[in-house]
Amino acid sequence: MQARELAEPYPVVRQDWGAVDAARLITGENRLGLIVVDDRNHPVAVLPGSQVLRLIIPGYIRDDRTLAGVVDDDFVSTMCDALEGRTVADLLPKEKSRLPVVGPDETVLEIAALMAAEHSPIVAVVEGPGSKGALVGAITLPAVLGALLPKQITDP
Amino acid sequence: MQARELAEPYPVVRQDWGAVDAARLITGENRLGLIVVDDRNHPVAVLPGSQVLRLIIPGYIRDDRTLAGVVDDDFVSTMCDALEGRTVADLLPKEKSRLPVVGPDETVLEIAALMAAEHSPIVAVVEGPGSKGALVGAITLPAVLGALLPKQITDP
Repeated sequence: MQARELAEPYPVVRQDWGAVDAARLITGENRLGLIVVDDRNHPVAVLPGSQVLRLIIPGYIRDDRTLAGVVDDDFVSTMCDALEGRTVADLLPKEKSRLPVVGPDETVLEIAALMAAEHSPIVAVVEGPGSKGALVGAITLPAVLGALLPKQITDP
Repeated sequence: MQARELAEPYPVVRQDWGAVDAARLITGENRLGLIVVDDRNHPVAVLPGSQVLRLIIPGYIRDDRTLAGVVDDDFVSTMCDALEGRTVADLLPKEKSRLPVVGPDETVLEIAALMAAEHSPIVAVVEGPGSKGALVGAITLPAVLGALLPKQITDP
């Protein structure tokens, strides 16, 4: 089985997208993160949802979580204002989350080895010239595991 | 909004479960990991799917991925034999992946602060006496983000 057969659609954002829109996409798609692409639809990074959360939750509440229990609803409803005017580029961690990239012909074992070596539960599949191909989809860890496991024999 | 409203069912395994069954559950549920519970259904850890992959992929292939491109299908089909006779306990990393735990009354802000502080995209919700309550569900990052974001006003 090859990358092109394992690739699935995956939600993407661009670096100039608003942070609020990225946050809504994470929620709407029920994903832990998004793939960030450049102008040519080449994947450049992963935006972990945890980065969005870190921007919303004030540092003093992360440091002293007892404070989280005593603030009122009005406070909570203003916290997301921290996202206003910010972009996806602002959210990306300085040490960008690496997103391994494979071509459409790579085998499931090559993909699995890459995931295991890079500690990444997702790889992007690109098609096109050299190292700047356009994103065609993503392969997640459950799909790779499913392709590697022997097919189950079900009782008739 | 409180933990009990945000909690969703989440696939669980016990430490004495077979590694193959855990791998199949990850695939079937399309999850990046599973919650490991003890005899009393108290959550003790997260089993990241990446640990299963690391056990399947031989170390020499992780180290030199060019080898992954030259092995044949017979080799791939025998790799999962590495899981036979192993249990979930064998798969858990020595440095166990911490799983933050909250009670049913904790607020969305308390949960979000915990996720942000512990860098965990999932928290377990337990109900019962003290720190040994039984698992009632899990809250994931997209659900927390959705509860924090201001409701969107849609055009009529």
